[in-house]
Amino acid sequence: MAEQDVVVLLSGGMDSATVVAIARSEGLNVHALSIDYGQRHQAELAAARAVAATLGVASLKQLRLDLRAIGGSALTSEDFAVPESPGEGIPVTYVPARNTVLLALALGHAEVLDARQIFVGVNAVDYSGYPDCRPAFVEAFEALANVATKAGVEGRGMRIRAPLLSMSKADIIRAGTALGVDYALTVSCYQADEQGRACGRCDACRLRAQGFVEAGLPDVTRYA
Amino acid sequence: MAEQDVVVLLSGGMDSATVVAIARSEGLNVHALSIDYGQRHQAELAAARAVAATLGVASLKQLRLDLRAIGGSALTSEDFAVPESPGEGIPVTYVPARNTVLLALALGHAEVLDARQIFVGVNAVDYSGYPDCRPAFVEAFEALANVATKAGVEGRGMRIRAPLLSMSKADIIRAGTALGVDYALTVSCYQADEQGRACGRCDACRLRAQGFVEAGLPDVTRYA
Repeated sequence: MAEQDVVVLLSGGMDSATVVAIARSEGLNVHALSIDYGQRHQAELAAARAVAATLGVASLKQLRLDLRAIGGSALTSEDFAVPESPGEGIPVTYVPARNTVLLALALGHAEVLDARQIFVGVNAVDYSGYPDCRPAFVEAFEALANVATKAGVEGRGMRIRAPLLSMSKADIIRAGTALGVDYALTVSCYQADEQGRACGRCDACRLRAQGFVEAGLPDVTRYA
Repeated sequence: MAEQDVVVLLSGGMDSATVVAIARSEGLNVHALSIDYGQRHQAELAAARAVAATLGVASLKQLRLDLRAIGGSALTSEDFAVPESPGEGIPVTYVPARNTVLLALALGHAEVLDARQIFVGVNAVDYSGYPDCRPAFVEAFEALANVATKAGVEGRGMRIRAPLLSMSKADIIRAGTALGVDYALTVSCYQADEQGRACGRCDACRLRAQGFVEAGLPDVTRYA
């Protein structure tokens, strides 16, 4: 391993694409990990491949895990409708323990690569209703990572980096644009079509469109 | 959900079978979760089904996750030989972040079921070389579970129970035998054949055979 090898969770959405660009801007070798957890559309995974290619990652691994077998969320089950207006409390699009599962897999990948940092695009501002998008979650996972792994036991340590944690969507778009992220490649929509074109109506589309407005930048999203 | 609903990680080995029996002895409704993470043999998963049936679980879910895509262990990769004598340090049979991944999936299952306890058969005595089999790991995961989930956010809490943590293999065999576990159904061997018969030579077989001797009970293991 080299000190600069890091694992980045890459979904194909705008947040994780920005995280890859941030890690690359620090001169780090990015080993991207995309998890196909039974999302409703494959467009997100295709977007991950396109983003990885344009941002010059060292490797991209795509891993399959059928979280639909667990169910419990509008994103992985047909039993829930995707909401088109903001609700109260924890949204039904919350996937049970999703970030815990994704970070656990990233931790395994980091151990094999002997990488000491994992980057994840969690964001507490726009997703305050998700328990696993809060600073306390990131801190608790880092504490776990340091007792759960060889690197931790042997005293080298494992850092969980969440550079978007306190950024607004507009902040993220401005930062990523400055670092050369092509957001037209990214897919945020909860119900994008097979070509990755967005619905323009779901919560994710609303937040994203508003982000471009607030950033004062043109919305490059491809809409259906 | 009922207060007595719990999730138990069930591998088909003797430890997790004993954990199911312990949870059942407390009058709990056991929702068993078996993860097929690309083990070398399927006998372990068949054993999980047999154990679940005889111990009267409320449900059994089998989830597929190909950890071979990550690699890095003798248990999930053909690049390593299974060791037949004890080594020093962390064994090559250690699967990177395995218990973190398994508990993360159990956490998702528990959230969907609204269960408040997860049982796992980790054991610090016989597996002291594995970072994720230590009390500090269990405590760190429980802390994580309480910030990562709806149950945690809403103040109901999530407990991680590891009843075997400080038991020797002989203690485990004695406890399970008293609770009616049929260890002939369980498979511990790292390289069991398709009928679930043990090699008798690998680390897991040695520990298991020694456990029966120390417990003063007949070894009911089916050997090849």
